[in-house]
Amino acid sequence: MAKTATKHRFLRACKRQKSNTPVWFMRQAGRYMEVYRKLREKHTLLELCRDPELACEVTMQPIRRFDLDAAIIFSDILLPLEPLGVPFEFAKGEGPVIARPLRTKEDVDRLRAFDPREELGYVHEAIRLTVRALEGRVPLIGFCGAPFTLASYMIEGGSSRNYLHAKRMMYHQPETWNKLMETVSGVLAAHLEAQVEAGAEALQVFDSWVGALSPEDYREFVLPHSRAVLARARATGVPVIHFGTGTAGTLELLKEAGGDVIGVDWRIPLDEAWRRLGNDVGVQGNLDSVLLMAPAELLRKRVLDVLQRAGGRPGHIFNLGHGILPETPPESLDVVIETVRAFKP
Amino acid sequence: MAKTATKHRFLRACKRQKSNTPVWFMRQAGRYMEVYRKLREKHTLLELCRDPELACEVTMQPIRRFDLDAAIIFSDILLPLEPLGVPFEFAKGEGPVIARPLRTKEDVDRLRAFDPREELGYVHEAIRLTVRALEGRVPLIGFCGAPFTLASYMIEGGSSRNYLHAKRMMYHQPETWNKLMETVSGVLAAHLEAQVEAGAEALQVFDSWVGALSPEDYREFVLPHSRAVLARARATGVPVIHFGTGTAGTLELLKEAGGDVIGVDWRIPLDEAWRRLGNDVGVQGNLDSVLLMAPAELLRKRVLDVLQRAGGRPGHIFNLGHGILPETPPESLDVVIETVRAFKP
Repeated sequence: MAKTATKHRFLRACKRQKSNTPVWFMRQAGRYMEVYRKLREKHTLLELCRDPELACEVTMQPIRRFDLDAAIIFSDILLPLEPLGVPFEFAKGEGPVIARPLRTKEDVDRLRAFDPREELGYVHEAIRLTVRALEGRVPLIGFCGAPFTLASYMIEGGSSRNYLHAKRMMYHQPETWNKLMETVSGVLAAHLEAQVEAGAEALQVFDSWVGALSPEDYREFVLPHSRAVLARARATGVPVIHFGTGTAGTLELLKEAGGDVIGVDWRIPLDEAWRRLGNDVGVQGNLDSVLLMAPAELLRKRVLDVLQRAGGRPGHIFNLGHGILPETPPESLDVVIETVRAFKP
Repeated sequence: MAKTATKHRFLRACKRQKSNTPVWFMRQAGRYMEVYRKLREKHTLLELCRDPELACEVTMQPIRRFDLDAAIIFSDILLPLEPLGVPFEFAKGEGPVIARPLRTKEDVDRLRAFDPREELGYVHEAIRLTVRALEGRVPLIGFCGAPFTLASYMIEGGSSRNYLHAKRMMYHQPETWNKLMETVSGVLAAHLEAQVEAGAEALQVFDSWVGALSPEDYREFVLPHSRAVLARARATGVPVIHFGTGTAGTLELLKEAGGDVIGVDWRIPLDEAWRRLGNDVGVQGNLDSVLLMAPAELLRKRVLDVLQRAGGRPGHIFNLGHGILPETPPESLDVVIETVRAFKP
């Protein structure tokens, strides 16, 4: 396969131009790969993120192993927290834990709106190294978390079941909430801009927790902030993917917030999602990650189902509905990729 | 307010007959009430469930305190597990924990299809006592978990993030999965029938975890079993509410599985949900439970929004999108109820 054709496939789809369906996987660099696990024996997750050469190496691991249409820089949506003044650590088996969650106006006033070019420069350096390592084979995607997902992490202090503290701040201290969201949004937008300057050819904004919200709460407390980040991201000139999970009831609002491509999870049929989103955006998705644990025959059938629902329409990017799980057999990615490559709508 | 009018309001809405909008709350008996917390100092949750007089007392607590249109028997969806041969306990702050989760064909073969009239007779006795205590003030709702939610509890061994084990059984051992679902479904249907015999005037089936599934998985592995339970429930002659969370992408399939009324969570606008469901079912919902923690003014505004989206259409039952949280101030329920009562479409 010609390098330029592969490169163009993903970017063409982002712009809804005719192309064969591109395929990449959220969290395609990670624990399901043995080469990654070996590196993790020697380094923590944050060490890998903060060392540009290691981050580049990890980003390249799946590119070497699989016939993918895009690379995504190895990084973490929580990296902006520490320079904001909210240190955290990854507790074993529990995910991120924040020692002092934000709860009051004073907590929010203490946040430090920093310059990502300085404090997150290692991510941008990793992007520069990776663009060089990719030698134009496939485009590199830069990313960040969406303001809601980051703000709720900081308020809840980790993952959450009901988002009680975050919603309480919205409802009882809307000014404090908005100030928090504005501070976070400014940092995120600048971080995305710096990723494009460093060579990222597309961006993805992850609103992983947005499914906790009612449409009304999203519209009132979140949409204006996501829109601000997405507008600055699009102003860089590269295509922007806006992804969330649990969004089957709020898809139209995610589109209203912005993005050239809307990423949808596995909880809604792709054709139904696209019909509701309309013709003027692309759609990324939407295979359940757990299907990568299924027998090849069932996996193939479900990949075909997604492809048929997309119907070869320009603007479909094949992906999962969320990230690859550590238990995934790598061979399943080959099955998916082969099925996508063989598909004729 | 005349007792018969109140009673009829909920049942009329279940049948999509003209009535003022009825209101009740999922988990309206529970830790947010001081009288309940006092009882819980002396008894475990399971003790309250298994003692018909205590279960009746707890069921009546919110009926005495609030102007509600329905009572729901105090019970737990997991009660069928122990007689099935799957003992569990409520670990502190962690929810139910099952010591030996089901994983293999042999595990499923060992399940014991029991007669709920014998082993869960205390629930039916509690219903008889409660019907007497209610003196016709409001109808009493009986309930059970849906087969998927119960089966996944038994397979995962507790609550789950990705439902990896449950989905693996579906994908790799479909016969074992179907046998498990059939066994559970038979028990659940008989349990619902016995609740109606004991005096329940409506039923609700809780598929609390169904939001983990893609539409395709729901259709292939779950729908036929839910349909079997719902069909037997409806054959009793009382109205049946089919509730799930995270169903914005699968609403039509939940309706296909059955139910006179479909319960929807807070993640989708009520009018959009009802438009998709069509005119031949009622809709129950759909205020975010966390809004009960909001200032009264915002709470009122959001209750009105739900009511206006329902537009006074026959068949709307006002409720939350999931259960009341323990942190809820009881006064918030008064605000909701007053707003519902005052509403003129």
